This record gives sequence, structure tokens and C-alpha cells, in this order.
Amino acid sequence: MYLPPFEITILGTSSAIPAFNRFPTSQFTHINGSYILIDAGEGTQMQLRKYKLPFARTDVILISHLHGDHIFGLPGLLTSLSLLQRQKELIIISPPPLKEILNTLFKHSEAKIIYPIQYILTQNAKPELIYENKKFKITSIPLKHRIHTTGFVIEEQKRDKKIIKEKIHEYQIPVHQFHKLKKGMDVEDMNGNIIKNELLTENPLPPRKYVYCSDTAYLDTLPEITFHADLLYHEATFLQEHKELARITQHSTATDAAQTALNMNAKKLIIGHYSSRYEHLNPLLEEAKQIFPNTELAIEGQKIKL
Amino acid sequence: MYLPPFEITILGTSSAIPAFNRFPTSQFTHINGSYILIDAGEGTQMQLRKYKLPFARTDVILISHLHGDHIFGLPGLLTSLSLLQRQKELIIISPPPLKEILNTLFKHSEAKIIYPIQYILTQNAKPELIYENKKFKITSIPLKHRIHTTGFVIEEQKRDKKIIKEKIHEYQIPVHQFHKLKKGMDVEDMNGNIIKNELLTENPLPPRKYVYCSDTAYLDTLPEITFHADLLYHEATFLQEHKELARITQHSTATDAAQTALNMNAKKLIIGHYSSRYEHLNPLLEEAKQIFPNTELAIEGQKIKL
Repeated sequence: MYLPPFEITILGTSSAIPAFNRFPTSQFTHINGSYILIDAGEGTQMQLRKYKLPFARTDVILISHLHGDHIFGLPGLLTSLSLLQRQKELIIISPPPLKEILNTLFKHSEAKIIYPIQYILTQNAKPELIYENKKFKITSIPLKHRIHTTGFVIEEQKRDKKIIKEKIHEYQIPVHQFHKLKKGMDVEDMNGNIIKNELLTENPLPPRKYVYCSDTAYLDTLPEITFHADLLYHEATFLQEHKELARITQHSTATDAAQTALNMNAKKLIIGHYSSRYEHLNPLLEEAKQIFPNTELAIEGQKIKL
Repeated sequence: MYLPPFEITILGTSSAIPAFNRFPTSQFTHINGSYILIDAGEGTQMQLRKYKLPFARTDVILISHLHGDHIFGLPGLLTSLSLLQRQKELIIISPPPLKEILNTLFKHSEAKIIYPIQYILTQNAKPELIYENKKFKITSIPLKHRIHTTGFVIEEQKRDKKIIKEKIHEYQIPVHQFHKLKKGMDVEDMNGNIIKNELLTENPLPPRKYVYCSDTAYLDTLPEITFHADLLYHEATFLQEHKELARITQHSTATDAAQTALNMNAKKLIIGHYSSRYEHLNPLLEEAKQIFPNTELAIEGQKIKL
């Protein structure tokens, strides 16, 4: 069955200090012709170009929190979009003072942003449906970090039911009833008899769901909206042997990330946001896999299809 | 004759839009055990790490102007230096509002910069000796750009004269007179006779000089301090066939850069700050070489010894 594209490209995998040629956090999401950038660490625009992504078409930018390693790539990217003559409105979803930060920067550097920016503000008290269109919806979820931080759940909208051609003929259903069928409603045949929807349609594939959690301490309770994700990205800054550092800095270990994937009943886990103390990442992967076998390391340039 | 290190490493060669994997402007200068960063476009800290430069030891940062492609790497670099536990004062030489820009950013992202920063402000009315220590001095020079912009002249301090050992013996000069000799003064021998300095010493190698000019329109008049540079870096954003673009944006063509090198009587020219319209850079090089043969293209990672 045809599935429209829903694909994440990893742009950055480092935590605060970008060591071992790893860039700070950023991801580019393609969902059925729309493009969502998630976080924008320094160098995001170079990574977008390096991996030949259609970043000029970005519709929405999601910012989890205002620590530098998640936003210092934003001024350069927004300036470049302007130099590239972007006209379309850009939606930026983020904690409150981002607009003021950017405007201060643009004012003093005399940068002119020629396209409109709509800022949508997150809160981090409870999950909130914060953006939706015909194709997808975005829910912010509270994370536990040193400052106001949210994760994001990106879900496809529910698909229409699929009409079974042969049954339409058999029950003689008129064309003008089809839109009701697609929405799951019962319809009338040519003679005015009510025909049950389930006789005429098949269930569509369920909407796919991507959950993004960076940066956060281990989450004891998970909002229901995160359950059964097709893909969970969860930060894993530290190994369990450095769990004290994780506690102090309000980050997660690979074990925390894997346990969260298990608690969420996720299908797949990607870990990232690696501390600069680890040159080699396999120990993080091995630690997570012991709890949640379907784990992969986030690697820059890597694409993950949902 | 031994010459202490004086070496530039190119970190970024792009103009405003970082195309073709070229990073925006930044250079790292090693001068006799001191380290000077010149401009800090986005990604500077990644480039410093990539080329394994001792950036934690940076003494001075020079900022030519506040356009984003020259400063958007600064917040990340300064934050990382703090995370790396820098204690030593950092000197930042730049146009006025940089301190306010950075403080706004650090306040909202809750970054703590744990080392002291001393800001020294440039003006762009006339050349000004803006920093010096025992080894080198830095002079800011006005450039012609859309906002307050300066170039920089980094020069070694004059070296001491070299004492000729044999002559010291011949003229029986006592040891306590040596420091006068090194400074070029005449001295007395054992018997109180005045001996001319030039009989006892050789001239040292002249101080080396690096001139940095980015970003600027063609400079009709050049301050004397720039004359006879060992190395001139001059932006060459455009080819002469796009000189109208250069005029509008107040940038230089390769021809402008080469003509300036000629006017300065520089020994060598490096061009950079390439427009994103040029994938291939040889036409820029060829254009410059027709006027100033000893021209090279700035290439990221390249080291140039003076």
C-alpha cells in the first residue's frame, strides 16, 4: 500500500561541546511534501546543504529549548533564507523569548528578514496540540531539563478509509456517497437501504507517529500521546556509569532512553546528543540495546524512514 | 636566522551564504605563542576542532563588523570555552554593540561565561593602535562597507639588534652594556671610549606584518601602516564581470583585491569571502593574478606562514 514520505534526516548528534566532528542537535523531517526542522544547533545550515536537503522549503521550525546548542544555528539559517529571497511565512514554535533574542541580533547586525515569521509559543506544563494542517499535527510535551523544554510528537492525520471497489458495485452505492464512506459513515444504496460502512471499506494504515525528546532527565510519567510511536528519538548524553552527571545536568543515560522507549511501547529508538567525553559511541548503543533491542545510533546524514 | 612562528590558518572562505561546503569567514593566527582569532562566522568552533588548532588558548578575538557571517559563530565558541573551564581573560576587539548582543543571547539561553571578557571597541574613522603586548601590536584600519567595519594590521614588535660576538671581544665591551646595544644605542668600552653601535651589531629581521581586509569596497586611499605587508588577506567576493553587484553590496572584485595588494606593495595576497554564485574559484584567482601574480586562493584548513 502506498505510504507518503515520512522521513527524518539527522543533522547533528553532539551535546553542548561539538567534539569529534559531531555537530550540535538538529534534524530535518520530510512529511508528505512538508518540511519541519527540529532544533537548530550551530552549523545547521551547512549540514542542510551538505546533505542536499530542500531547506528553502522549510515550513515549520520546532525549538525544544533555548540552550545554545539547540538555537545558535538559527540566526544564520534565517538570514540565509532571506538572502535566498524566501517569501513564504515561516512558523517557529519555541519557548517565549526566542523572538526577542533573534530581533536583538538582527537589529544590530542590520540583517533584514524579508519573509514573515509567525512565532507560536510553547508552555511546558502539559501536552498541547500546537500546530496542525491537513497532513499532520504537532503536539508539544513537557520534558524535564534545567530550563523550559518541550519534546514534540509529530503525527500524520488519520487517513480516509479505503473504499472496496467490488463492494461498491455489488451494493450499488452512488458516487456522491463516497466521501461519507471515506469518513467511516454508513450510506444509502440506490434504493434507499442503509449499508454498513464496514461492508464497503477497509481500514487505512494507522497514522505514523514520531516522538522527539531532547534534552531531558528520565521521564517517570509519559503522556499518552507518546504511546506506540513508530520512532522515538531520545537523547542519551551519558553512559549509565556517568548517571550522576546525567542527574546533575538533567540529561539521560542510554539506559534511561531505552527504558523510555520500552515504557512508550515505541517500535524503534534512535539515540543521540552524545557527550564530548565519548569518542566512540558503541558502548552507548550496546547499553541501550540490552533494554530495548531495536535501538540505533543517530549518525549525521543518516535518514530514517517511518 | 630563527624566526618565531607567525602563521594564519584559514577556517572559512564563504561570503554571506555558505555554499559548496564553504564556511563563513574566520581565521586563526598563531604569532609567537599567542593566538588571535579573526572574525567568527557560524561553525568556527567546528572548524577550529577539525583542523586541531589550540583554540582554548585564544588570547584575542578580532571582529571586523557585525554582519552575521562574521559573528554567528561567536556565541557557540564563547560558550564552549566556558564549558571547557577557561579561566583566563579573553580580549574581544569589535564594533560597539557586540557586548549587548552576546549578553542578550547568554541571558535568555542561561549560558554562564565563567571567564572574564574585556571588550575593546573599534571606531572606523582612522587607523588606531588598539592593542599591543611585548610580541605584537594590532592596528584597526577603516574599511568601506555597509556598516561600521574595520580591517586589522597585525605586526610583530621590532626585534632587538643582534650583537656580533667577535666584535664584542675585539672592542672589549662589558656585559652590562649589552642591553643598550640591543636597543641600538652606542656604548662605552672597558676604557670609557664611545663605540658606535653599528660596529658591534647587525640589524635584525624586520617585523613581519599581516593585513586583513574583509569586508570592503575598493579602498582608494590606504593608510601607511598597511604598506609593505608580508601578507595581505583581501576579500574578493565577486569577479569583475559582477562589479555592479560589488558596488551595490560594498564588496570587492578579485581585480580590486589585486589592485589593493599592488598599491600596498604587499609581498603576497590571499583572496577569499567568495560569493555563493561561484562553485569554481579559479576564475577569481586568474583575474587577480593578472594584476598581482603572487596571489593565492584562501582554502579552508590551509596554513600560510609569514
